[in-house]
Amino acid sequence: MKKQHNIPTGLFGFGTVNEGLYELLEKTNNHSLDIQKIVVKNKDKARKIKNGKLSYDPDDILENQEIQLVIEAISDAEAAYHIVTKAMENGKDVITANKKMVATYHQELLDIQGSTGRKMFYEAAVCGAIPVIRTLDQYFPYDKISSIEGVFNGTANFILSKMEEGASYQDALQEAQDLGLAEADPTSDVEGWDAKYKLCISHKHAFGKTISLDEVPNYGIDRISATEQKFAKENNYRIRLKAIAENGQFSVLPHFVSEDDFAFHLKGEANYMEIKSQFAGDHILQGPGAGGFPTASAIVSDIGLYQEGYDYQYSRSDSNNIDSEVNTWFYVKGVDEDKLAEITVKYIKESIKDETFFLVNSKVRDINSLDPALLVVINEDVEQKFKK
Amino acid sequence: MKKQHNIPTGLFGFGTVNEGLYELLEKTNNHSLDIQKIVVKNKDKARKIKNGKLSYDPDDILENQEIQLVIEAISDAEAAYHIVTKAMENGKDVITANKKMVATYHQELLDIQGSTGRKMFYEAAVCGAIPVIRTLDQYFPYDKISSIEGVFNGTANFILSKMEEGASYQDALQEAQDLGLAEADPTSDVEGWDAKYKLCISHKHAFGKTISLDEVPNYGIDRISATEQKFAKENNYRIRLKAIAENGQFSVLPHFVSEDDFAFHLKGEANYMEIKSQFAGDHILQGPGAGGFPTASAIVSDIGLYQEGYDYQYSRSDSNNIDSEVNTWFYVKGVDEDKLAEITVKYIKESIKDETFFLVNSKVRDINSLDPALLVVINEDVEQKFKK
Repeated sequence: MKKQHNIPTGLFGFGTVNEGLYELLEKTNNHSLDIQKIVVKNKDKARKIKNGKLSYDPDDILENQEIQLVIEAISDAEAAYHIVTKAMENGKDVITANKKMVATYHQELLDIQGSTGRKMFYEAAVCGAIPVIRTLDQYFPYDKISSIEGVFNGTANFILSKMEEGASYQDALQEAQDLGLAEADPTSDVEGWDAKYKLCISHKHAFGKTISLDEVPNYGIDRISATEQKFAKENNYRIRLKAIAENGQFSVLPHFVSEDDFAFHLKGEANYMEIKSQFAGDHILQGPGAGGFPTASAIVSDIGLYQEGYDYQYSRSDSNNIDSEVNTWFYVKGVDEDKLAEITVKYIKESIKDETFFLVNSKVRDINSLDPALLVVINEDVEQKFKK
Repeated sequence: MKKQHNIPTGLFGFGTVNEGLYELLEKTNNHSLDIQKIVVKNKDKARKIKNGKLSYDPDDILENQEIQLVIEAISDAEAAYHIVTKAMENGKDVITANKKMVATYHQELLDIQGSTGRKMFYEAAVCGAIPVIRTLDQYFPYDKISSIEGVFNGTANFILSKMEEGASYQDALQEAQDLGLAEADPTSDVEGWDAKYKLCISHKHAFGKTISLDEVPNYGIDRISATEQKFAKENNYRIRLKAIAENGQFSVLPHFVSEDDFAFHLKGEANYMEIKSQFAGDHILQGPGAGGFPTASAIVSDIGLYQEGYDYQYSRSDSNNIDSEVNTWFYVKGVDEDKLAEITVKYIKESIKDETFFLVNSKVRDINSLDPALLVVINEDVEQKFKK
């Protein structure tokens, strides 16, 4: 197949990602795209864009017959959904970096893709430059995957790493904001939403089934206090915000991890995904999960796929075994002890200074139903260790 | 493009890899191949192959007009070279797992591929199931890679891990042999040849240039004694056999690594490759580097590429900067101190019990030219630590 160059392209958004893309293409002398229009929202912001390319009207791209490919990297998921669906309906192929949009509307997008016959890529939406989607989709398509898990949010991991060095949550967050790693409103990163979007998107390629955001409980790191830091230190744990899909269970939760866990050694803003499969074995992919150039790199890789005439395979059928009988140990704060006694098999009451917490052996959906103030997984059997 | 199924295929060899492939295809109900002939050498060995498929005559595949794809996984590199070149000359595409063959004849094979117009894949030749070649070739083709490094030999890493637990080299090797991880003749694994083949093959995809085996010094782990184990323990090092290509320098050498090195935490038979790139950042791929199913998995992935009409891109031009002025600290045994004084900038003489060794700051080619009995890289500046 002959590679197409100078693909007539329209960009939506010119923030960190698309500006990174623009610069990357220039610096690497990459002529895959002919960027004809760049549609942005904010008229007051100065932009490093050549005259005539800038527009504030989406139809300058969407109704432009010449434009063949749309690259969407705006922050508003609803607006992005309208752009991307309209683009496909108007015969254009799409590359998007919008994880919230893909995670929220994954099945709808696949249906529209199916009915319009267009192509849609979103490697940049999951763990930045790490080739997660491509690897799940193309490299292990024949294999049965038993689990995917990892640290999918670099901001949270940066904050947790700083807390290990002695910083409070607030100070660590402030440092992340000062460095541009965290937004002014850090909710999506610290409460696990961002990681959940990535888990939901990956799930389709790993297990052949789209899952909805409601199905995945997410507890963040924002309620982790000196008590948990002390608990971690005393037990040689580190705290990591892990996303996991295994045995038909999904969650984004903080974990107390010990030294034999890969996440234990992951410091700072890196991401990783561990993929366990039947024949190809256990794999880890680690790399930069955010940032302008890394995310733009994933888009450039998608452009490469597109030039090759390739599309995602989605070759896996629903292979997710439901095994809801698995119990896990949780560190839990802010639940009613009477209710706890009703639902759980075992629990241990503990305290550090004046704070009471419970070590609870239960299913995630059971403990989640009690709506605790804080929920942290403990990745080992703690019964012998703590039971008096 | 419509995927071709039941591709008329001939297999060469039916050892761990091709037997794994055969079983994997059956177990996953994969109909990509129609395996028509399996050519093996040893007539006395019992094989789990259906009647009529087995042959001892290479021409039953090579001269068979129907057969379109040859999958070669024999141990003899010279014989493999003749099979693979003949196959391409006879109009057949090739998937090979033979790292020694590809590393030794890489440029010749590419030339024959060019003149015959056939396809040739060899993901299975580099780090088993880890998608190393594909990632370098397809995922980062636009990017400038500054280095690749890693642990490319699981047998050596297994032995080193056992030595950390207190075993001698001989006992650790024996255990690896008992487990089927090491051959009766372990030379290729423990002396770094196997890792060197993988480094040479990867180099072409990372830096756009084939390098010859002679250019890459390899020192193994077979001469590591209780002295080095003691030295490692006292300095909180672990020993890892690392393959590195950076700044136009290549080597496969044992390293004393400290806790901040990714290799430090790699235990047992796993492999990993770290890829550092300009825009996509630093990446790590870790997984099983050997074994029947993992290696067969890489072949199945190659079959997938082949079905998609894809071929390796080799899109990188020679991008390897020569920076031969980099000095490194080495732990060296069995060199003449007078000669050492001539070539090196700095060295420190040390001893543990009765054994003398040198900590030498030099270029690898300089120290290599002295033909030391043992050479281990130290990944930090040891001058302050040891200088009296």
